[in-house]
Amino acid sequence: MGQPPSDIIRSIQESDRILVMTHVHPDGDALGSQLALGNILQSLGKKVFLYGEEQASHLYEFLPGCDKIKNKSELPPLSQFSCGIALDCGDCYRLGKAMDELLSVQPFIVIDHHSGHKEFGDLRWIDPLRASTGEMIYDLGVALGGEISYETAYCLYAAIVSDTGSFKYSSTTADTFRIARELVIKGVRPAEVAGKLFDNFTVNRLNLMKMVLDSLELHAGKQVAIITATREMFAQSGAKQEDCEGFINYPRSLEKVKVVGFLKEAENGLVAGSLRSKGHDCDVAQVAAAFGGGGHRNAAGFKITGESLGEVKEKLLAGLLPLVHGGRDGR
Amino acid sequence: MGQPPSDIIRSIQESDRILVMTHVHPDGDALGSQLALGNILQSLGKKVFLYGEEQASHLYEFLPGCDKIKNKSELPPLSQFSCGIALDCGDCYRLGKAMDELLSVQPFIVIDHHSGHKEFGDLRWIDPLRASTGEMIYDLGVALGGEISYETAYCLYAAIVSDTGSFKYSSTTADTFRIARELVIKGVRPAEVAGKLFDNFTVNRLNLMKMVLDSLELHAGKQVAIITATREMFAQSGAKQEDCEGFINYPRSLEKVKVVGFLKEAENGLVAGSLRSKGHDCDVAQVAAAFGGGGHRNAAGFKITGESLGEVKEKLLAGLLPLVHGGRDGR
Repeated sequence: MGQPPSDIIRSIQESDRILVMTHVHPDGDALGSQLALGNILQSLGKKVFLYGEEQASHLYEFLPGCDKIKNKSELPPLSQFSCGIALDCGDCYRLGKAMDELLSVQPFIVIDHHSGHKEFGDLRWIDPLRASTGEMIYDLGVALGGEISYETAYCLYAAIVSDTGSFKYSSTTADTFRIARELVIKGVRPAEVAGKLFDNFTVNRLNLMKMVLDSLELHAGKQVAIITATREMFAQSGAKQEDCEGFINYPRSLEKVKVVGFLKEAENGLVAGSLRSKGHDCDVAQVAAAFGGGGHRNAAGFKITGESLGEVKEKLLAGLLPLVHGGRDGR
Repeated sequence: MGQPPSDIIRSIQESDRILVMTHVHPDGDALGSQLALGNILQSLGKKVFLYGEEQASHLYEFLPGCDKIKNKSELPPLSQFSCGIALDCGDCYRLGKAMDELLSVQPFIVIDHHSGHKEFGDLRWIDPLRASTGEMIYDLGVALGGEISYETAYCLYAAIVSDTGSFKYSSTTADTFRIARELVIKGVRPAEVAGKLFDNFTVNRLNLMKMVLDSLELHAGKQVAIITATREMFAQSGAKQEDCEGFINYPRSLEKVKVVGFLKEAENGLVAGSLRSKGHDCDVAQVAAAFGGGGHRNAAGFKITGESLGEVKEKLLAGLLPLVHGGRDGR
């Protein structure tokens, strides 16, 4: 597996004030990688600023050091930084509203594992064969000679588990297990992290899940599944938007299903779509792109405003059907 | 981590006809370990008979070689065997109806990882620190110098993933990851095995799941959860008893829940109970024992006849409440 490029290692070694960023709406891999890299750089005597546009979802508050991530109001003048590092960003827009400013930091290092990565920044380590950015940060930390403390190991383990669905996704490799083993040797307890990531259902969330599962529609001989979360479901269950995390895996686990779409009524007339597919035959990234979104072959998403959930669902179904064999409905 | 004892290795090396057994109602670890050990012994030139009281559940039919497991009608005279090996059996009764006959094979080797293991047989390798019997069979296979073929690796990986809930249970150790890595290097694709083990929902099964989730009751400040599957639910959904596998993990994933009971109406007035707990505080094995069952601290079960589901539920609740802090209901 590719190891960190020497120009990135040199650049980091030569910098003493480093800005570490990740993408908006950060997930477990984004936050875990950001916090871990922050710790590693600090162990090497660097001054580090961890930037985040918004507060992390309550689902990830358990990550140690989550409160160290600061938003724009606390960001020092960017000229102070001798290096910027963006983690887990498939393209520069994932940096969010402050993108233009953030990109002014030089050199700008980009570390990412997304397969459809669109190049940006000065120095890049892009490895789509890696299951998570967390894996890459572990190898970078070791290459830099930084300390992998228990807290750092915990964050990296959470990042890896988060982005592999606990070693279930096809991105999982022998390297993933190599690093998981090292992190467990550092003291990480797998059940503790998995518990925080997966056993975090509130009763409200379980109630929302039942409603969302009730919305299941199957098309094209049960190969295409669509589920929806409406404003009414959120109101009735008392659950939040972020509580939908992971719901898409239930229709995905139906044995005949090849493609899943999950539509969620969000704030201000926004409809958010998440897409998943199994195996190598169905590329949902291209469907997401048709809706102005993006992602990987097996996991993608988009956002749309000004259309009703029903309208978006109809269009989405029309986009998904051609992906499955033959694509004819009603078999 | 403990390695296979030399007396077991010697005994196997000296035997040429070996009977390999596992427990009744075999799960992924039992079947995966049995099939893998069969392959390993054959690669060493041994004649092997894989015994199973009944056919494997359709959930595990994907395991390569599952059809090589034969029942009593095909069992040759037991005096023909120069060695018997029982896998994943917490006590001798787990061998099923033919227990007494099977135990007549000598030497009788027992390999198991259950923490409450009750000793039986002539030579034993019992290691409760192991997450699965599959892990132990990998190390045994290597110690014997047998071949770990792709099929064998596949079976062992399925065994490990099955008994750790995909590396989520507290039994998962650095050794678990060491072996998972070796098996992936042998060609196992983690997503393929996880898909077979976890993405095997039929629509009937999903419908049963919704009904079972609807039966959720929470007690003692949401620390104790009970779910039930009634005969009506099976009839209405068209799902089978074995389709309940894994349902208990949903109430278990509620953040405040410490103990879960799942009661299932089975055939002939039988009520089957599964119990789960989180962490080290709540020992469900002792509750199961009070119902004539058994198991581990965090996972146990029992079977009862002659009582209605409602009666068993009341008694079970009375047994579970004292396990949680204070044990008072209604908080």
